[in-house]
Amino acid sequence: MEIDEIVEIIKRQILEECGQKQKIRVEASGRHIHLSKEDAEKLFGVGYEFQILKELSQPGQYACKERVRLIGPKGIIEGVIILGPCRNKTQVELSVTDTRILGIEPVLRESGDADKTPGIYISNLDKMIKIDSGVIVAKNHIHMTEKDAEKLNLKDRQLVKVKILNTLRPVIFEDVIVRVNNNFDLSVHLDYDEANACLLNKDSYGEIYE
Amino acid sequence: MEIDEIVEIIKRQILEECGQKQKIRVEASGRHIHLSKEDAEKLFGVGYEFQILKELSQPGQYACKERVRLIGPKGIIEGVIILGPCRNKTQVELSVTDTRILGIEPVLRESGDADKTPGIYISNLDKMIKIDSGVIVAKNHIHMTEKDAEKLNLKDRQLVKVKILNTLRPVIFEDVIVRVNNNFDLSVHLDYDEANACLLNKDSYGEIYE
Repeated sequence: MEIDEIVEIIKRQILEECGQKQKIRVEASGRHIHLSKEDAEKLFGVGYEFQILKELSQPGQYACKERVRLIGPKGIIEGVIILGPCRNKTQVELSVTDTRILGIEPVLRESGDADKTPGIYISNLDKMIKIDSGVIVAKNHIHMTEKDAEKLNLKDRQLVKVKILNTLRPVIFEDVIVRVNNNFDLSVHLDYDEANACLLNKDSYGEIYE
Repeated sequence: MEIDEIVEIIKRQILEECGQKQKIRVEASGRHIHLSKEDAEKLFGVGYEFQILKELSQPGQYACKERVRLIGPKGIIEGVIILGPCRNKTQVELSVTDTRILGIEPVLRESGDADKTPGIYISNLDKMIKIDSGVIVAKNHIHMTEKDAEKLNLKDRQLVKVKILNTLRPVIFEDVIVRVNNNFDLSVHLDYDEANACLLNKDSYGEIYE
């Protein structure tokens, strides 16, 4: 056992004995798109290699320097960030505010569940594609490893309440879904409407409530 | 006592006996501006009379047909609705999302408390004014009459938790301030970030939580 791990365990035990709950990092996800390889090639050309802007907190995921435009029936959103690597199916993740700008229905879904979701036009310079489905408002969720789940006494896909603290506008989100995956660090993921609703700042954190 | 009032009291008593809580109407306030008479005349001309677009749910308040433009350091928001009648001091009420578009700091305040809040440029056609303060993100609140406050066992300026129900994204807002005023109907007022965070729809309602 590494010294860091021992320190972490002792910290947690002390917190538990003091009746304090574990502080969970809260991250706000901005609007973004995951492109399928096929759609990426239609928009950027065959064999195109995306440039990495920065690595994301979830391992293996990165933001690209390239951006796309979304064109809805009512409005346009420019400069939408592309997250890599490519996925099997193109998926656009928006806030409810974004769906109002574009003029499409906000359909709340977990990532990957695109059945009966709205489509949209996506363009890069003179190239344009239309997807028939795949635009979602992502359900808020908590990523955690099996170890975290055990410590917090939670199970994969369980719904929990999460209270956001250290903010001027404290909010409790209900029905936050637990997603257990050993690749993902412990963190609550909100969209920008939710982050703005609680005036999330760099010192804010989450706690399992009740 | 009117028959409607009697029916209302009986309904409440039955709900209480069933352990059910009172359903409270929830309203989302979009961005808007209240103009002082002086600023209104600078932007629209001396003696200008605003045209009423529609009466609001709170008695005596109305939305005007006229709109203004807000100009911030980073961006512009067109078509901002003016609420009447005129107030003593010009006040702009925005969501956090709006403050990000304009590039100004989101300062959370109760309506009327403009001390040390950001200013902004406001224009109508070729006329432009600058206010040095008065841009706020309005704190969420519950309007109620003295009668409502008595029934709910709440006091003016008390902070309560409000749970939003009948929505796909249930949220509990903490620190919602009670504002007792016999002119105002019972209703929870949220801004659009908060309304979008809970995916508020026409069937949603609020309940005092705990």
